[in-house]
Amino acid sequence: MQGLISKYGKFLDAVKLKKSTYKKSVEMQKNLSTDKLSKDAIKAHKKWKGKYSIELVPEINNYYDLSLAYTPGVAAACKEIEAAPQKVFEYTRKGNLVAVITDGTAVLGLGDIGVLGSLPVMEGKVALFKKFGGLDAIPILVDTKDTEQFIATVKNIAQSFGGINLEDIASPRCFQILKRLQSELDIPVFHDDQHGTAIVTLGALFNALKLVGKQLEDINIVINGPGAAGVAIAELLLSAGAKNIIMCDEFGILHKGRLSALGAEKLDDLKSYLTNITNLQGKVGNLTDALKGADVFIGVSVGGIVSGDMIKQMAKQPIVFALANPIPEILPVEAEKGGAYIVGTGRSDFKNQINNALVFPPLFRGVLNAQQKTSANIPICTDVMLAAALALSKSVADTELTREFIVPSLFNQSALDYVAGVVEKVALDRYEASVREVALVKQ
Amino acid sequence: MQGLISKYGKFLDAVKLKKSTYKKSVEMQKNLSTDKLSKDAIKAHKKWKGKYSIELVPEINNYYDLSLAYTPGVAAACKEIEAAPQKVFEYTRKGNLVAVITDGTAVLGLGDIGVLGSLPVMEGKVALFKKFGGLDAIPILVDTKDTEQFIATVKNIAQSFGGINLEDIASPRCFQILKRLQSELDIPVFHDDQHGTAIVTLGALFNALKLVGKQLEDINIVINGPGAAGVAIAELLLSAGAKNIIMCDEFGILHKGRLSALGAEKLDDLKSYLTNITNLQGKVGNLTDALKGADVFIGVSVGGIVSGDMIKQMAKQPIVFALANPIPEILPVEAEKGGAYIVGTGRSDFKNQINNALVFPPLFRGVLNAQQKTSANIPICTDVMLAAALALSKSVADTELTREFIVPSLFNQSALDYVAGVVEKVALDRYEASVREVALVKQ
Repeated sequence: MQGLISKYGKFLDAVKLKKSTYKKSVEMQKNLSTDKLSKDAIKAHKKWKGKYSIELVPEINNYYDLSLAYTPGVAAACKEIEAAPQKVFEYTRKGNLVAVITDGTAVLGLGDIGVLGSLPVMEGKVALFKKFGGLDAIPILVDTKDTEQFIATVKNIAQSFGGINLEDIASPRCFQILKRLQSELDIPVFHDDQHGTAIVTLGALFNALKLVGKQLEDINIVINGPGAAGVAIAELLLSAGAKNIIMCDEFGILHKGRLSALGAEKLDDLKSYLTNITNLQGKVGNLTDALKGADVFIGVSVGGIVSGDMIKQMAKQPIVFALANPIPEILPVEAEKGGAYIVGTGRSDFKNQINNALVFPPLFRGVLNAQQKTSANIPICTDVMLAAALALSKSVADTELTREFIVPSLFNQSALDYVAGVVEKVALDRYEASVREVALVKQ
Repeated sequence: MQGLISKYGKFLDAVKLKKSTYKKSVEMQKNLSTDKLSKDAIKAHKKWKGKYSIELVPEINNYYDLSLAYTPGVAAACKEIEAAPQKVFEYTRKGNLVAVITDGTAVLGLGDIGVLGSLPVMEGKVALFKKFGGLDAIPILVDTKDTEQFIATVKNIAQSFGGINLEDIASPRCFQILKRLQSELDIPVFHDDQHGTAIVTLGALFNALKLVGKQLEDINIVINGPGAAGVAIAELLLSAGAKNIIMCDEFGILHKGRLSALGAEKLDDLKSYLTNITNLQGKVGNLTDALKGADVFIGVSVGGIVSGDMIKQMAKQPIVFALANPIPEILPVEAEKGGAYIVGTGRSDFKNQINNALVFPPLFRGVLNAQQKTSANIPICTDVMLAAALALSKSVADTELTREFIVPSLFNQSALDYVAGVVEKVALDRYEASVREVALVKQ
C-alpha cells in the first residue's frame, strides 16, 4: 500500500475532503422483515411509476424559444458538431449521460429473469447515478443472449452516451463483452458487478489492514466464488500488490491440474486462467483447508457456507468480507464468535456495508469530468481503479477509522465527491501521459 | 370528409375541447435574420449543455429509502414483473418512455450529417415530447447505414421503451425500416417525417377545404417531392377519400411508363408504386402542367421552385402548402400575388405553420395512454392517424377558422390535449375491435 500511496499520493492530496462530514449521516437501516420491505417496495414502485423522469432544460414558452431549441436555430449547433465532433460535449447532454445496459441474465440474486424483470433494478441504478454522482443515466435493455449480437447492438448505439455501465450480465459472457467494448468503443465502459465490487472491496481492505497493522504484500487472502466479482477482485488485489491469493469454487481450491468437479473434465478457460495468477504454491483442498491460517476471507458466492469454526482457524485478527446477498457467507454475529476482528457484508442493515454504490457514481463522475475537459476517450484503466480504491479508504480519516467503520456512509456526499475528484485527476494524468507517449513514439 | 366525421364523430365528440383557449398564445415569431438566430441558438446550446436532464422521482435520503428503490426491496418488483410482464407498465417508466431514434442520414435540410451532428435535433424532439405531450423521451443514435443492422439493433433494445419515434432517416430506407419494425415489435413505432407530416397536412387541408367549400373526394391535388413525407401524405390523403392526386419529382409528373430521368432507366420501385396509386388518368408533363387546374398544391421538396404564374393557372381559390424548410417552394407573399387563397408553410414566422410538432406529442400521448390501460400493443394504424388529423382540424372551431388560421397554435395545449384524447379513444376502440375479431375467429 505504501507503494500505491507514493504513486497516487499527489492526486489524493490534491483533492480536498471536507473532514467535518466524515461520519455525518451514518445511519444503519433497521433490520426490517423481508415481507414488510417487499410490501413497502411494491407500494412505492406503484406510486413512482418509474424512478426517474426526463425534464426540460430550456424554457419553451413561445416560438422564439422554440426556434432556438428546435428548428431552425438548432441547425447551427448541428453544423458545428458535424465540422468538429468534440463540440457534442458542449452542446448536448451526451457528456453527462451514462447508459445502464443489461441483458437481464444475472439480476441481483435472482438470476436470469429477463430484461423486463430487470428494469426496476436498472432504474434503481439510474436513481443512484443521479443522487450520488449528479449524472444523467438511462436504462437500456438489450434483449439477446448472443454475445456477438449484444456487442454489435451496444456498439451501434454507443454514440448516444458519454459512458456505459454494464450491469447484471452473467459470467463468463460478461468478461468478453467488457473487453471487446472497452477496446472497440471510444467512451469509457465499466462492468459494475466486476470492477465496482473489486474497487470497494480493495478500499475496505486497505482500511482493515491499517487497523490490524498488516501489509497487503504479506497476507494470505482467500476469495470464494470465481464469478464476475471474484475474478475482478483477484485481479485488482494483485495489481495493488497482493501476492498470496487462493480462489475457491464450490469444489474447493482452484489449482493447476484440478478437475472442474469430482471425477469430471478439465477446468474451464476462466478457472484455468485463475490457477495461473493465484495459488502459486499449488495449495489443494476445500474451503476449510484454504482458510487455515488465512488473514482475509472475501466471499462473493452464496449464503451460509462459512462457519465460526472455519473462522477460528484463520490467522490472528482475521478480516471477513462476506459479501453474498441477501444472505452473507457467514452472519456477522457468527463471524465475530469465531474470532473475526473485522467483518463486512453487502447489506445495509449491518456495519461496514461494502457496496459498489460507493463506487460507480463517483467513478463515472470523475471519468466523465475528465472526458468533458479533454473531449477524448478516458478509459477506466487499472490506475484509475486503484486510485478510486485508495481515495475511498482515505475518505475515512485515520482518527475516525474503527473496526466498525472501514468504509464511508453512502450518504456522506463529501466522501463521494472526494473519490470523484481523485479519479478525475488520475484519469487526466494518465490521459496526458498517454498523449506524451504517442508524441514520443512519433518523434 | 363527411364520411370520416360520421366514422370518428363519436370519438371527436367524446373528448372535450376547451374552446376558450382556441386562439390564446398564438404568437408569430419575428422574422429574425438567420445569422442572429444561429448566434442566439449556439449561445443557448452552450448554456443548456443538453436540452433535457434525468431527474429522480423517489426521495433517497437514508438507507430505508434506498432499500425500497434499490436492493433488497426492488427484488419484489422484479419478481412480480418476471411472473406478469404487463406489470412493467405499473412499476417502471417504460410505459411513458419514447425513444427518438435516428441514423443521422436526413437531418432537417442538412442531409447526412452523421449521428453526432443530429443529436441537437433529437434532443429538441425530446424537449417537445415533454413540453407538449408530458412524455419522457430519450435520443438514441444508431450509427449504421446498413438497414438490417439498424433493424436488428432497434429490435434488440426495444423492450426498454414504451414507443419508438423514428426520425430523420433517409428515403427509401425509412419505408422498409418502419414497416419491419411495426410488424416485428410489440410497441408502437412511428416515423415522424412520414406520418407526422402527413397527419398535420391532412388536418390543415380539412380546414382549408371547409373555407373554400370543396370536398376532398372532388379536388385535384398535386404533391411535389416523392420522399418520406410525400409518399405518406399521398397514402393518407387517399385513405381519407382523396381520388385525384398527381405526384411530381424533379423531372415532372410521375406516370406509368415514365423513365427515372430524361433518357434514363425505368422508375425505381417506390416511384413505380406511386404511379399505381396516383395519377389514374395518366397525366404527363412537368410541375407547371400538373398545377394547371389543380385545387391544392402540397410541396415537400426544395425551396423556390414554384412561381406566382404557376399559381395563377390553378383552379379557383387555390390552396398552397409550401412546406420545404427553411425556404418554401414559394414564399407566401408570392403565392398570394399569384392568387393563392390559403397559404401554409413549415415555418414559424409565417401564418399557418403546418409543423409535425403539432402531431407527435399528442399522438404518442394518446397511444401510450391506451397502451398503459391495456398493457397491449397499440399500433398507430391508419384509423388512428385519420382521427388525429380530424381532431387537429376540429381543434380550430368553425367560428375561429380563417384563411390565416387553419391549424392551432403549438402553444394551445388545450388543442393538443384534445387530439391526444381522441387518439386514445380511437386506439382503444380499434384495439377492442381487434380483440373481438380474434375471439370470433377462434369460435
